[in-house]
Amino acid sequence: MRLVIIGGDAAGMSAASRAKRKDPDIDIIVLEQTYDVSYSACGMPYNIADPQRDMEKLVVRKADVFIEKNKINLLTGHRATAIDRAAKKVSGIKAGGEPFSFDYDILFIATGASSVVPDLPGFDLPQVMSLKSLEQGKLIKSYIQENRIKKAVIIGMGYIALEMCEAFEKRGVKVSMVKPGPVFLPWLSPGLAEVISEELKNKGVDIYSGTAVEKIEPLNDGVRVCCDNSTLDADMVLVAMGVKPCSDMAKEAGLELGISDSIAVDRQLKTSDKDIYSAGDCADTYHVVTDNKCWIPLALIANRAGWAVADNVTGTKTRLQGIAGTSVFKVFSLEVARSGLNFKEAADAGFDPVENSVKTRSRAHGHPGSTPIHINMVADKKTGRLLGTQMVGKEGVAHRINAVAVALHNKMTVADFSQTDLAYAPPFGPVWDPLLTAANQLVKKI
Amino acid sequence: MRLVIIGGDAAGMSAASRAKRKDPDIDIIVLEQTYDVSYSACGMPYNIADPQRDMEKLVVRKADVFIEKNKINLLTGHRATAIDRAAKKVSGIKAGGEPFSFDYDILFIATGASSVVPDLPGFDLPQVMSLKSLEQGKLIKSYIQENRIKKAVIIGMGYIALEMCEAFEKRGVKVSMVKPGPVFLPWLSPGLAEVISEELKNKGVDIYSGTAVEKIEPLNDGVRVCCDNSTLDADMVLVAMGVKPCSDMAKEAGLELGISDSIAVDRQLKTSDKDIYSAGDCADTYHVVTDNKCWIPLALIANRAGWAVADNVTGTKTRLQGIAGTSVFKVFSLEVARSGLNFKEAADAGFDPVENSVKTRSRAHGHPGSTPIHINMVADKKTGRLLGTQMVGKEGVAHRINAVAVALHNKMTVADFSQTDLAYAPPFGPVWDPLLTAANQLVKKI
Repeated sequence: MRLVIIGGDAAGMSAASRAKRKDPDIDIIVLEQTYDVSYSACGMPYNIADPQRDMEKLVVRKADVFIEKNKINLLTGHRATAIDRAAKKVSGIKAGGEPFSFDYDILFIATGASSVVPDLPGFDLPQVMSLKSLEQGKLIKSYIQENRIKKAVIIGMGYIALEMCEAFEKRGVKVSMVKPGPVFLPWLSPGLAEVISEELKNKGVDIYSGTAVEKIEPLNDGVRVCCDNSTLDADMVLVAMGVKPCSDMAKEAGLELGISDSIAVDRQLKTSDKDIYSAGDCADTYHVVTDNKCWIPLALIANRAGWAVADNVTGTKTRLQGIAGTSVFKVFSLEVARSGLNFKEAADAGFDPVENSVKTRSRAHGHPGSTPIHINMVADKKTGRLLGTQMVGKEGVAHRINAVAVALHNKMTVADFSQTDLAYAPPFGPVWDPLLTAANQLVKKI
Repeated sequence: MRLVIIGGDAAGMSAASRAKRKDPDIDIIVLEQTYDVSYSACGMPYNIADPQRDMEKLVVRKADVFIEKNKINLLTGHRATAIDRAAKKVSGIKAGGEPFSFDYDILFIATGASSVVPDLPGFDLPQVMSLKSLEQGKLIKSYIQENRIKKAVIIGMGYIALEMCEAFEKRGVKVSMVKPGPVFLPWLSPGLAEVISEELKNKGVDIYSGTAVEKIEPLNDGVRVCCDNSTLDADMVLVAMGVKPCSDMAKEAGLELGISDSIAVDRQLKTSDKDIYSAGDCADTYHVVTDNKCWIPLALIANRAGWAVADNVTGTKTRLQGIAGTSVFKVFSLEVARSGLNFKEAADAGFDPVENSVKTRSRAHGHPGSTPIHINMVADKKTGRLLGTQMVGKEGVAHRINAVAVALHNKMTVADFSQTDLAYAPPFGPVWDPLLTAANQLVKKI
């Protein structure tokens, strides 16, 4: 049996390696348009921040390891362009321009996502970059170094934007952040967003919310970012306005698309064609809070879904429960984490949400070094179910959110969650864990 | 209605404050034998470690605050000695020797636990101390300072022993730890215990397992600890051999006792007498993994159970689900955490346990500063249920264990737990969280 995989990143290579491990006889072809497979994409901002560290350190395994050790027919520089479902064939173009075509028994589309770049004048200038591939990461890093960048404009305010903000600052680059929407981090509760915005301001970052970029013009060696209400001059621009699923090829092949044009898959990662799977940043998934489809492209689900595809292809029926929408990032001294739905998402999903915010401490009374932990917790008034939690603080946030994630998977009520036996020792928190304090307070509102 | 509370520590004062808040008309008398109420007992080792910090910093609220602000009739220096259930009366002796007696409608026994001190020669010497009350903490701290202690022997190897080990080391005191049992930390899986023992050795701590103390003799200004196989000379001795519930008075009053002579209570914290509640370190509780009674005296359950007593006394029926046996402590650079049952406890409870240990990393591939995280996970072979987890590492352990605690409350299988959506960002862990790696491996053994 031949399994053809389009895309050699997290989902694709996880599936390839596991499938080969489970069934050494399977014929696997992986088509990857770049030359980089298996690297820590999420580690790029931290690597860029450090001039001493080689970008190659992010590579987990090189292509030749997969080829020689894992016996996977990994073809880099191979860009797939079309799927012929009737003939069960994938065709495309090699880096040199030569066409290729492969028959498949099972196809796995793991094409990932690409940066959203608006179709406006100047976004194609060489000083205007995105951070999605390792190649782009290397380019940004060397560009900062070689051009002695002093001022950067970041367009967008998502995770990557915020992480890159810190990376630039560590490299001595002054940052201005720009976005069209009027609210800074609208997905966070206003009190928590305020904590982050204060931190950014303290680090010298200028924030321009409610500012739409209209065009970018060359200016000496740098650029001028022309907005609806101002102009910003800089040495370079990072476009970090989010990502979109690479689903064009799937769409053209007539596969069903889901939320945000991601490829619709069932719990076994099967698309609307029984011989085609999809997973990773290009595919949708189920949300354990709403039980509805969602598209929240993150690394864990890509890896997990890659494994599940391998299991299903090699005969172990595996169904995924879905995601809780858990994420965490670091911005300067702050840890920011969330799991589940925020108030608005809960209302949109048909719940009757009630929320509460608390400010507690990271360590016990009388223990030195304690810092504030801010929590916003959302529940359903009708059922008392915990729907989501957001946290911001300097310590004890990143791993604490996992307790919420597990609670969401179990559809716990806030009252039941408030009874959980969480760990206590003075260096790590108050007797009543911040999450329990948040739950105790929220219970009163239900 | 009059509520009399014996014991003004975590459980007692939590109950008193909450009951008064919920029903300002309730007549509350708290009988406390010491003069300290509401202080962070768990913070004592860390405070002792730091000569600059006043022990009073550990006091959360002083007695007069409860009396004046909360209108609680808090009687310090009042030692209760007997309960007359027929007459519904508590009697005792004041610090000055004067007897007292109070009628109650409802009695709440929150007498806590006391240090286990063996009945052997020399354990009453002034150089031999325990750490249970704030007064004892102050005594140890000033003793170290005033007598310029250079060498200490700690008898016992539990949490307090290990935390005090670090406190002594920070004060420049050389520590030898002694215990009769042959195995260092037998409640931990051997691989994890080894990590801690290495850490202690690196910090210059001598460990004498399988060494029974027979007597302690005075020696100049210090002591000689005479063991069955050796003698150890030191300036002082800390006895940290665990605690026992203060249940004598309850036993004499004919109340039913449970595990380890703790006072048996139901999920509403009621003893075998319908007018008497008990909670905190003196009472037993339910374990959410076994659904059986257990006695694991820790701070959170004392506070939570105190609140539940207040609720039940003031008319809000509250039942506790029980504990998961979650605990965490810090010993030098290590965080040590557990939740649920270890392999032996699982077997003793009638499960068919299977365990697996993994060594993973605290940060993502290529992210600097990563350190090992060691995990032992236990499941039931028959049902696939997760039964418990232990973790040791330099970072990312203390709060991560909470995900396990929540899973145990929900009686999750390891397979379901392995599908949970835990947080990922390079500074905080690998894509596959260490707990997920542990679960993925353990699933294969089930």
